[in-house]
Amino acid sequence: MSDQDTTPTPAPTPTPSSVPPAPTGPPPKVTSHGRSTVPIASSNSDTTDVPEFEPFVLPGPRGFPPLTEFLDVWEVDMVKRPEEINKREHHTMLYNSDYLIVRRGQEFQVKITFNRPYNPAEDKFAVEFTIGSSPQYSKGTYIPVFPTKERQSSWEGHIKNTADNTITMGITPDANCMVGKYHMYVAVVTPFGIRRTRRDESRNLYILFNPWSSDDAVFLDDETERQECVMTEMGIIYHGAYDDIAERNWNYGQFNYGVLDACLYIMDRSEMPITNRGDPVKVTRKASAMLNSRDEDGVLVGNWSGDYTYGVAPTSWTGSTDILLTYASSKMPVSYAQCWVFAAVFNTFLRCLGIPSRVVTNYFSAHDNDGNLRTDIILDDNGRIDRSRTKDSIWNYHCWNECYMARPDLPAGFGGWQVVDATPQETSDGMYRCGPASVQAIKHGQTCYPFDAAFVFAEVNSDVVFYSRQKDGTMASVKVNRTHVGRMVLTKSPGAMTRRDITDQYKFPEGSKEERTVLEKAEEYGCQREKSEFPPADVELVLPTLEVNVGNDFELSLEIINNSNQRRTVDAYISGSVVYYTGVSSHEFLLRDPTVKIGPNQRVKEMVVVESKYYMPHLVEQSNLHFIATGKVKETGQIVTAMKVITLHNPKLNLVVSKGGKVNEEMMVTVEFTNPFNFPLEGVYIRMEGPGIMPPKFKYYSLIPKGSSLVWPEYFTPQRAGSTKVIATLDCAALRQVSGQASLTIEA
Amino acid sequence: MSDQDTTPTPAPTPTPSSVPPAPTGPPPKVTSHGRSTVPIASSNSDTTDVPEFEPFVLPGPRGFPPLTEFLDVWEVDMVKRPEEINKREHHTMLYNSDYLIVRRGQEFQVKITFNRPYNPAEDKFAVEFTIGSSPQYSKGTYIPVFPTKERQSSWEGHIKNTADNTITMGITPDANCMVGKYHMYVAVVTPFGIRRTRRDESRNLYILFNPWSSDDAVFLDDETERQECVMTEMGIIYHGAYDDIAERNWNYGQFNYGVLDACLYIMDRSEMPITNRGDPVKVTRKASAMLNSRDEDGVLVGNWSGDYTYGVAPTSWTGSTDILLTYASSKMPVSYAQCWVFAAVFNTFLRCLGIPSRVVTNYFSAHDNDGNLRTDIILDDNGRIDRSRTKDSIWNYHCWNECYMARPDLPAGFGGWQVVDATPQETSDGMYRCGPASVQAIKHGQTCYPFDAAFVFAEVNSDVVFYSRQKDGTMASVKVNRTHVGRMVLTKSPGAMTRRDITDQYKFPEGSKEERTVLEKAEEYGCQREKSEFPPADVELVLPTLEVNVGNDFELSLEIINNSNQRRTVDAYISGSVVYYTGVSSHEFLLRDPTVKIGPNQRVKEMVVVESKYYMPHLVEQSNLHFIATGKVKETGQIVTAMKVITLHNPKLNLVVSKGGKVNEEMMVTVEFTNPFNFPLEGVYIRMEGPGIMPPKFKYYSLIPKGSSLVWPEYFTPQRAGSTKVIATLDCAALRQVSGQASLTIEA
Repeated sequence: MSDQDTTPTPAPTPTPSSVPPAPTGPPPKVTSHGRSTVPIASSNSDTTDVPEFEPFVLPGPRGFPPLTEFLDVWEVDMVKRPEEINKREHHTMLYNSDYLIVRRGQEFQVKITFNRPYNPAEDKFAVEFTIGSSPQYSKGTYIPVFPTKERQSSWEGHIKNTADNTITMGITPDANCMVGKYHMYVAVVTPFGIRRTRRDESRNLYILFNPWSSDDAVFLDDETERQECVMTEMGIIYHGAYDDIAERNWNYGQFNYGVLDACLYIMDRSEMPITNRGDPVKVTRKASAMLNSRDEDGVLVGNWSGDYTYGVAPTSWTGSTDILLTYASSKMPVSYAQCWVFAAVFNTFLRCLGIPSRVVTNYFSAHDNDGNLRTDIILDDNGRIDRSRTKDSIWNYHCWNECYMARPDLPAGFGGWQVVDATPQETSDGMYRCGPASVQAIKHGQTCYPFDAAFVFAEVNSDVVFYSRQKDGTMASVKVNRTHVGRMVLTKSPGAMTRRDITDQYKFPEGSKEERTVLEKAEEYGCQREKSEFPPADVELVLPTLEVNVGNDFELSLEIINNSNQRRTVDAYISGSVVYYTGVSSHEFLLRDPTVKIGPNQRVKEMVVVESKYYMPHLVEQSNLHFIATGKVKETGQIVTAMKVITLHNPKLNLVVSKGGKVNEEMMVTVEFTNPFNFPLEGVYIRMEGPGIMPPKFKYYSLIPKGSSLVWPEYFTPQRAGSTKVIATLDCAALRQVSGQASLTIEA
Repeated sequence: MSDQDTTPTPAPTPTPSSVPPAPTGPPPKVTSHGRSTVPIASSNSDTTDVPEFEPFVLPGPRGFPPLTEFLDVWEVDMVKRPEEINKREHHTMLYNSDYLIVRRGQEFQVKITFNRPYNPAEDKFAVEFTIGSSPQYSKGTYIPVFPTKERQSSWEGHIKNTADNTITMGITPDANCMVGKYHMYVAVVTPFGIRRTRRDESRNLYILFNPWSSDDAVFLDDETERQECVMTEMGIIYHGAYDDIAERNWNYGQFNYGVLDACLYIMDRSEMPITNRGDPVKVTRKASAMLNSRDEDGVLVGNWSGDYTYGVAPTSWTGSTDILLTYASSKMPVSYAQCWVFAAVFNTFLRCLGIPSRVVTNYFSAHDNDGNLRTDIILDDNGRIDRSRTKDSIWNYHCWNECYMARPDLPAGFGGWQVVDATPQETSDGMYRCGPASVQAIKHGQTCYPFDAAFVFAEVNSDVVFYSRQKDGTMASVKVNRTHVGRMVLTKSPGAMTRRDITDQYKFPEGSKEERTVLEKAEEYGCQREKSEFPPADVELVLPTLEVNVGNDFELSLEIINNSNQRRTVDAYISGSVVYYTGVSSHEFLLRDPTVKIGPNQRVKEMVVVESKYYMPHLVEQSNLHFIATGKVKETGQIVTAMKVITLHNPKLNLVVSKGGKVNEEMMVTVEFTNPFNFPLEGVYIRMEGPGIMPPKFKYYSLIPKGSSLVWPEYFTPQRAGSTKVIATLDCAALRQVSGQASLTIEA
């Protein structure tokens, strides 16, 4: 005890001051000082310069002798022009960029010209690559590459060819190296120290993931898939209803000028350590959080309110370029997005960095239910839906992404396609990120493996449970629909503009033995399901599938089928509402409650006329009408139900492109639209763009009178040869997601 | 196409306005409207009232007939006094609260008095419980409980006893029900509708996790452990160095007035859905994020800077009560915390809600290294440590929590103790939450299971790799220490004030076959390790273990042992620095570089005198001195190293308690301290508290002259019988974590 070691000199006992001094000024910025020696490198835009000269010995009295006798670097050629070997071999020729862009795990070439021929016996030099601040060899952020077999670092190097003073060096970045923006130096070793080229922006280079390299975690051994999931810019995103599928074109624009830098900025903004940026699992997980503005001020602000006054309506976007460039320049979240916008921009991010990816659409997606395997619909004791008490929602569809990678962090067998989802989930315990979750794990109910597999499992496997509410406030489940949710999963076919049903990659066939086994497995991992079984009702309700154009009146016939041998009396309710694609109903515009008598084994049709004047005033974006029919069978007390979503078809934009079409020759496209309604359209935006031919453009019309037409002629100059598309959308508060497109082929 | 369905009346073609109207005013608040029918219930303080009367039928012309003939509720007794059966049987009698507090999965009793005797044949009533806003039967947030066998909900109910108009009802909440604050109603069913008791705060009740119930996920089948990990308020947290262990008392105060509400507020503040609050996995994961202020403005602000001017120094706290009550009232993060403060307050949260938990200390914890199994130390080419390039840190110790629960989300075998850690990790991909990670999974290298097992695995298993930096900037690993990290894991023994070594629960013995197997398993899951093997050096360096009081000079002897049969010459460096407990060095105060010649099989001692005048001015909190000795053996070129942390021992506070000690009888404690140094101490805080006897108190002394003494007499009145402690700390910029304690026993 040091109080024994010291002899206190007598002194007046200090007296306590009752109050401590009031703190003044703002609290100090909390630093990492004392916590870590240097702040963690988490920005790819920060750089520290490597010194031009690192002395080995102290200079003599007259400084260092002239180093002229040693190798001196005169010129460095990054071989970065699109037509040159590097970008051709590395599938990066489409990137609109001034810098060299290559993929890891694959050789690229640089040419170095010295002051004299290189002499392997005498001369010692290294090509050095650095990324981020405080580059460090042991962290893989400083990588020297040597021309000699004897000396090799994690990046292999050798001299391919020597001509006079110029050597061509082949360099192969490690297949697991960090992905991002590097700088290259050439360093010559002299007895007095290391002499380096001065920093020069033109020697920056980008290294991307490489689906073409079998050593890369994102290796995808199928050229058609690679062409689709990495190289394709124009995509199709499916929406509508599973029995009336609609599609939307989207220009991912991953090669457009500035998009690659925007993607790196997203990771910088998230303060993701540079050292994690070679791992596709960490990159995709982080990105799923950063694509939405929750928590980290990410890229997109979600908005399902119907009010988009101070931003762009989710239905109005035609591609990702505008969104990513706006975010990177404004450094503020961009307004507004719904699920397909999150998925589309995420897709651009992934393809741009070289991770194979696709957008998928799940029809009838159980949502916001936190991995619960039940979605509850509450009926009152007459069998009529009780909207005030029905709180779960089933989205008519939900879009997410799949990306392709190995999963070294999981047991064997769970690599391949992984679900990632950037749409913020409201109820899932603040989970504003989702995935990567192995599709294989989801199909087999192995929901115990990271990340968020149980959550995605529920989105495709939940049961819909109908409850009947008793007088005393309790509920009895009266019906379970085990096939409604996750009805179908679609994505675009590789190399074609057609759709591909991949439901079987997520689920075994409904009712199969495997399906039951999988559900039991998932229950072991804590998913809860509704167990009750119900005798099949001897009365059925059937609602028809209809294709209806917005603004039209139409007839809906409810078919009531009596499979029993007795008479049946059914108290039926037919309710029609306008719903968001999230399944949330905004207005009930129709209600009928016929009582129907049916003879044994008879079927009766109940006709309902739906007049547009009742639904038009209440339309919200994506114009879905949702009909629920429920019936209580007097004789048996059984409750029967039927549900149907009708996606109203919108008018189309008409796009006409001028004949011909050659690179660098001006062309014209004409957008035409006629207001088919008997009311004017106000505050109308039209947006248009096309990969390789036109950057995003828009026009604003304050008013389009009823029945009148508009024509927007636009000139453009194709940049690249090949077949492409120009796509356009029209959007205003009263009419959402009107679109049009035209295909064209550009000659070289 | 609806443009065919309509005939546009000719009208002037609208002309595009070049610019859209400038948005005015602020952007609209983004609502969940259209996204979900009602906002998700995520606050336990919000409530919606259940109506007092729910009619079944429309009132007749003269309203409803008088309901006097039906059962009417006169009085409800929650049986909530500590000495009554409920709190006794539910182990909640220590909570200082005005409300009934019980545990789920176990029966409690309420007494209901009606206007007349209850007649089971005629009368229909239910006891109803609600939690959060918009309570709903199917979500388990509205639970009716019935007195009859015929009718039962998920909570079992029956009548234990009837006396005149009063019945005693036994109620057993479901063992998986949500944990938090409920309200209770009594509802009587009449033919005209349901009549309910008016809302009355005195009928609130809290339902907690129940380690005593075998149906509860947190069931812990060991009474000694339950008493320690749920009921014990005074804890011990270990720090210092593994070979010179220091301990710190902490008053968890989980039963103090307002602490339970503060814990519920933390979950409300995190917007955790009410429906998740019965799942200990989700609750603990969410809390690990909420205990630190990163991301969600959680409870504690981490600060390792040494500057705590505008908050309380981490070393100054004596317990959790102050921190939790301040957070709940100010609704602002509390300054400041380091790892043991995060762990201690987290422990209070867990014990308060009924989840068994303990604080553990891991000595030499690999930190901030993102699950990497390597910690790099860089030496220059003379074998001297290069502090500017050595960026990883090994914390002298790190504290986290273990909590006990089943893991239904994982395969069998991973339940039991789970690691959770609320200290924000800087480099782990924005992971400001950690766990629950199964200790079993960590021991067996099953790092593929959620949550964050790989990260904790690295904290106890990393290798220390010494690199020697070559002239050309590359590095060669020269030595690997596989036993340094995770040297020992300690926690307090249940039911005793002694320590318990639980290292074997995290790791197999160093060098054992099992250990190698586990490390290989972990590598399969992507952990990277340093593979190189090195021939054992024939020269050893040894630094002694010393116990030194702060302010003293001392001698350090470096022993150099030559195990070879030849002479050896060693160029040695001995470097001494002041370090934070994070292992980050703040100042190098000593450097020697002797060259030592040693005969075959000889040992030589190199004496170094360490004078306090060199280290005292640079001391930071927790006064650790860190010595590294490295040597380069001339003859073999081998590099040898030794490291030693010396924890300086501080002076103690002297606490003297007056004799006797009876509940509600005033007592006195005297705190004495003498400044042993030859410099004055400025801005000194002394804090003191004791479970069941004294709330947190503090005094501030602006100056304690050198050598002088202070005396603080404090009066207090014990609330409870039993043996307890009063603990105190003294803290100022120049001298951190001086502490003292006194034990006392209070008679009933």
